[in-house]
Amino acid sequence: MSILVVGSVAFDSIETPTGRRDRCLGGAATYFALSASYFTDVRVIGVVGEDFTPEHEAVLTKRGVDTRGLEHTSGKSFHWTGSYVKSLNEAQTIDTELNVFETFAPKVPAVYQDSEFLFLANIDPVLQKNVREQMPKVRMVCGDTMNYWITGHRDNLAKVLTGLDALLINDGEAKLLADNSNLVLAARKVLSMGPKALIVKHGEYGATAFFGEHAFGGTGRVPTPFRAPAWPLEEVVDPTGAGDSFAGGFIGYLASQPEINLKNFKHAMFYGGVMGSFAVERFGTERMQSLTREEIDQRFALFRELSHLD
Amino acid sequence: MSILVVGSVAFDSIETPTGRRDRCLGGAATYFALSASYFTDVRVIGVVGEDFTPEHEAVLTKRGVDTRGLEHTSGKSFHWTGSYVKSLNEAQTIDTELNVFETFAPKVPAVYQDSEFLFLANIDPVLQKNVREQMPKVRMVCGDTMNYWITGHRDNLAKVLTGLDALLINDGEAKLLADNSNLVLAARKVLSMGPKALIVKHGEYGATAFFGEHAFGGTGRVPTPFRAPAWPLEEVVDPTGAGDSFAGGFIGYLASQPEINLKNFKHAMFYGGVMGSFAVERFGTERMQSLTREEIDQRFALFRELSHLD
Repeated sequence: MSILVVGSVAFDSIETPTGRRDRCLGGAATYFALSASYFTDVRVIGVVGEDFTPEHEAVLTKRGVDTRGLEHTSGKSFHWTGSYVKSLNEAQTIDTELNVFETFAPKVPAVYQDSEFLFLANIDPVLQKNVREQMPKVRMVCGDTMNYWITGHRDNLAKVLTGLDALLINDGEAKLLADNSNLVLAARKVLSMGPKALIVKHGEYGATAFFGEHAFGGTGRVPTPFRAPAWPLEEVVDPTGAGDSFAGGFIGYLASQPEINLKNFKHAMFYGGVMGSFAVERFGTERMQSLTREEIDQRFALFRELSHLD
Repeated sequence: MSILVVGSVAFDSIETPTGRRDRCLGGAATYFALSASYFTDVRVIGVVGEDFTPEHEAVLTKRGVDTRGLEHTSGKSFHWTGSYVKSLNEAQTIDTELNVFETFAPKVPAVYQDSEFLFLANIDPVLQKNVREQMPKVRMVCGDTMNYWITGHRDNLAKVLTGLDALLINDGEAKLLADNSNLVLAARKVLSMGPKALIVKHGEYGATAFFGEHAFGGTGRVPTPFRAPAWPLEEVVDPTGAGDSFAGGFIGYLASQPEINLKNFKHAMFYGGVMGSFAVERFGTERMQSLTREEIDQRFALFRELSHLD
């Protein structure tokens, strides 16, 4: 089944303890699409400027990603400059040039209308809602957000949350959204805002899913939370895109399965962790471009061994 | 099989976001012994002052803990005052009165000589080594330490590490001991100092075991690391003793099994997490005094469900 992602396609200038790269291809939709492309068909909606060349687009199309929803316009592409020199766990934003992204008004092309899965990457919740409404027949909708929208655009965000099957955010975002420093209480509050499931990403410690009542085939009770591990990595070269690669593996795997149920949801979380662990091994999307399904399944087996009790 | 623990038996004055308690029974050996007592026989070596009453001792003996190695001396017991008001993840020490602990010279009674498991709780590594040498026939030795000994008594600590089957410390301590901010590289360095296994405790995110070559029945290769989860708790009343309760569950379960192998090691880590999760539910050792094996096994089942992939 096919997935539609709406989000940023951008250039990133990144500094980490390992080195730096200027203007490498990035953006949430790019990481997501590349990651999900190992599992199923992916379609992208985004906007890019004149600096986005056919070579950049080929990075996506080589992986079979449908880029017909990528709007080319005059001006420059979104450009983010960030540093992980102080901490690999948190990006320090040095500069954000929205450029063509500032007036982005995503339109779902007719040929994308039959997409069964939708990922609303981290963009203005007004745009997320707008895209959601253009996809009345979609089977599963997942979304991301960030502190900026949680603190300054809460009412708009609330309208997105009510329509989500799963919200994927990190510990800090979940606690901020719920205004509660306890993760379990924060999760309960967030679930009361609408999402059927909340996946909280813990970086190197994995991710925990919290479920609402009857979620994903849960039989008459609230399913037990589920914790998927992250692989302990010897080197994190560049953390950029780890969360979107997680989302790509998660939704990609789910979309490749005949049914959305708790068992597949849990396996999908493992695949999310697998794709996140690959993403950070090299700068930018380099690793996400060059994987094989065999490598992915080998690492999935490692994740399983890491946390499996006989 | 029986476990010998050497460590502090103390009084703690604790402030947390939930409230405060003055001079409640605590100390690493106390938490460890109570926790392990649900699995097997436990013997304690420690020193207490005149303020340690028969009622205090009864807390241990009621759980079947052998206190014949508890030295009663004139003066006051070790007294720690700490606060978790700023952060539930890290104790802020307000005052440490060593009292009778200052001249503690642990002696292993003859009746303890046949103990098969030894836990060297967080005390001066000179004393840890001394106790280790009094137990030449012990089957498995586990140990704990802290930043104070890592930074100021490194040479003495090194002599303890060479003789350990498992070292149980937290992320910050492992990174400090190895002088490396990457957990995997830090773990490899710590293992090169002697321990056959390193268990790194991540607080609310569980714990990861790293193994040396051939550790615990590993067949000719370094076993894959193992990650045990922690249960997402709605309320942490008092984090004091969580690590020692983890150690008690871990070694207690292992000592209750016919063999020390990787499978039992992994189950033991789950039981460690289970006991740690109970410890923090009430102030001091309250919860550790009143458990049932049924409650423990029920929570074990929850831990398993939390992280089990069908």
